Amino acid sequence: MSILISDAWMLPQEGFLKQKYDILVEGEYIAKIAPAGTIKCPAAKVIQGNGSLALPGFVNAHTHSAMSLLRGYGDDMPLMSWLNDRVWPLEAKMTPEDVYWGSLLSCLEMIKSGTTAFADMYFFMDSTAKAVEESGLRASLSAAIIDGETKDFQEKVELARIWQGKADGRITTMLGPHSSYTCSPARLQEVMEAADEYDLAMHIHIAETQSEIEQIEAAYGKRTVQHLENLGFFAGHHVLGAHLVWLNAAEIDILAQNGVCVAHNPQSNMKLASGIAPVPAMLQAGIKVALGTDSSCSNNSLDMLAEMKAAALLAKVGTLDATALPAAKVIEMATENGAAALDLPQVGKLEPGYKADLILLDMNKPHLAPLHDLASQVVYAANGADVKTTLVNGQVLMQDYEVLVLDEAKILSEVKKCCKNLFYR
Amino acid sequence: MSILISDAWMLPQEGFLKQKYDILVEGEYIAKIAPAGTIKCPAAKVIQGNGSLALPGFVNAHTHSAMSLLRGYGDDMPLMSWLNDRVWPLEAKMTPEDVYWGSLLSCLEMIKSGTTAFADMYFFMDSTAKAVEESGLRASLSAAIIDGETKDFQEKVELARIWQGKADGRITTMLGPHSSYTCSPARLQEVMEAADEYDLAMHIHIAETQSEIEQIEAAYGKRTVQHLENLGFFAGHHVLGAHLVWLNAAEIDILAQNGVCVAHNPQSNMKLASGIAPVPAMLQAGIKVALGTDSSCSNNSLDMLAEMKAAALLAKVGTLDATALPAAKVIEMATENGAAALDLPQVGKLEPGYKADLILLDMNKPHLAPLHDLASQVVYAANGADVKTTLVNGQVLMQDYEVLVLDEAKILSEVKKCCKNLFYR
Repeated sequence: MSILISDAWMLPQEGFLKQKYDILVEGEYIAKIAPAGTIKCPAAKVIQGNGSLALPGFVNAHTHSAMSLLRGYGDDMPLMSWLNDRVWPLEAKMTPEDVYWGSLLSCLEMIKSGTTAFADMYFFMDSTAKAVEESGLRASLSAAIIDGETKDFQEKVELARIWQGKADGRITTMLGPHSSYTCSPARLQEVMEAADEYDLAMHIHIAETQSEIEQIEAAYGKRTVQHLENLGFFAGHHVLGAHLVWLNAAEIDILAQNGVCVAHNPQSNMKLASGIAPVPAMLQAGIKVALGTDSSCSNNSLDMLAEMKAAALLAKVGTLDATALPAAKVIEMATENGAAALDLPQVGKLEPGYKADLILLDMNKPHLAPLHDLASQVVYAANGADVKTTLVNGQVLMQDYEVLVLDEAKILSEVKKCCKNLFYR
Repeated sequence: MSILISDAWMLPQEGFLKQKYDILVEGEYIAKIAPAGTIKCPAAKVIQGNGSLALPGFVNAHTHSAMSLLRGYGDDMPLMSWLNDRVWPLEAKMTPEDVYWGSLLSCLEMIKSGTTAFADMYFFMDSTAKAVEESGLRASLSAAIIDGETKDFQEKVELARIWQGKADGRITTMLGPHSSYTCSPARLQEVMEAADEYDLAMHIHIAETQSEIEQIEAAYGKRTVQHLENLGFFAGHHVLGAHLVWLNAAEIDILAQNGVCVAHNPQSNMKLASGIAPVPAMLQAGIKVALGTDSSCSNNSLDMLAEMKAAALLAKVGTLDATALPAAKVIEMATENGAAALDLPQVGKLEPGYKADLILLDMNKPHLAPLHDLASQVVYAANGADVKTTLVNGQVLMQDYEVLVLDEAKILSEVKKCCKNLFYR
């Protein structure tokens, strides 16, 4: 089926004037982009842009979608008591059913706020995969791998193999060694061997907190990034590293030289008081820095527009330089770099030949007026509620604020039940 | 007229159970609050809460509302070139008409995002006052006073006297000496004398940037707060100080001892790379710290819910303490402390006898589910687009997302015209 998105703004880019455009979608791909009013395709379903801004859908490069079930349950607490007293006791009681509904709630939130692809790491990956399949979203899924499991480890590798390329290619997978403080060098070795054997990428938490660095240094005599490099974790692998907050210059070089992709999670790093990641320095070194929300339990939102603003603002105050991380660069992080981090070719740009993963942002709102600069408006003034239309892989998931693929009332009511059961189970 | 808001959540507070409530508004005041279903008032207009959360309206304690005209015009620039090359040339061309429409655009944005009162400092104060009068909002207005004006200075004092208590008391005024780097000690002295003579409060920028501190030290041999104290600026006056980023412990003591109210502007301080204000330390010292967005030119949004999240997150990462500035305290800053900063008695709480300045937050949304903790949900998950109903002084300004008092299309079109004229004038 063809879809014609007519009369939409696009961000200024090389060869594009500041004017409105028509975008023709054919099947899963963007087929053509031309000045508004010039594409004629009588057979196409027409979506009126009405002066909305067309953007590539956002790529949330690091989240744990099922944790939406715990949103707001234990904020403003010290990290370890939050985990020990709140998160882990409930996670221990979670069923595949819970993970399914929690993931679906997050998929719904993402569709509504313009995220079209996400990288997820959690347990009961089958359940999240099922939710992704139904939602129409694109996702790179990894089952969290830790020490002390043998049969489980094999099953998780198997899950990655089974789901790779499923749902018309919308689901891809990575292996998910949780971190170097929950995975011994031996376990990381096994994961790397499986990655090599089955040609899989790896998604891992790296250098999130200062105490992690101390712990790794005490155990292995090296800081996290250097420890992982020593193990051969980076060389020859596609690695999606989440957080990368505590880095020195030598470690930034290691990441750059090995092509490690970084998921920066500014709001989670602020809320959990982890620290300020050296994003401008990483970008300067040529690292593909993408953007993630982390879970709605440590954020507590999956709104990538809010995350983009936080990224820009945190970089500026962190360096005391108002020119650090300008708006257009942040948009690149949330789209192109996200696609690179998830290893998704032909995703992350609005160009013919790219996958039709795109959104329309409704610019006809008081808080988005007047319109001096499209990129500034997106990053500094818009929020997730301004997304009116979301397409993934050429399918319309939301049109004019109406989600077409999921039953919102049903999801909200099932989530309520899951939470009740979690507490009384 | 009586208005009955039925079946709404309220934040947990002493003497309140976690249950839903009815809120009866009579005239300008909250008359009664009782468990849902128990207030009978057949004559009242009923607003169904439907499980929304009732909150005191937000008080934006520092903004320049007319600057919405420049939203997004010159972001990611060094402060001085942004001011010299972008802001000041356009401000020099602004007319009272421009300031009127810019202020009205901000009033519209504030109504839609749940702000019910704001402190404004700008020029052409008459125009902003007219916009506030029409919008139904509450505001404390001050005309920015600088050096090198004599007739203007007298006129600005006169404006403060004329508008004090106007619009059924919704408009109050302060004198607005811009800062100690734009006002000489002699000018500040004149302002203090006028404040004493006419019993007026003062709204001023203090210690926003490190370079300001250096400039004041070079000129007067003291840091900003100490310089102002020496001049007698604090003692015996109601002072609303904006920013207060660069403070040492002695200065925090001075502010506390003199009852100076502080408008903290986290997103502006981040975006302009001003620095991180020591908010937890100020609160600890007993200072009433309120919350402001600053202008939509340095933010670029007037969404107080986003500002609340930024305040909480910035305090945590700034102190590397995840327990700093918990959600309930941030809500207090955005409501009660804001009312104190604007010197508005009987504003900022939902209690009988308080002014009926209140909002309903729509909790029936995927990104606000599930509901474990109301305060967490407000601060960490909600945004301005979740505000569905706004009342000020007992008048309904917006009901179920429909603004009843202003013509949105007209404002957007007039703002467009103003901007066009500003550029080509």
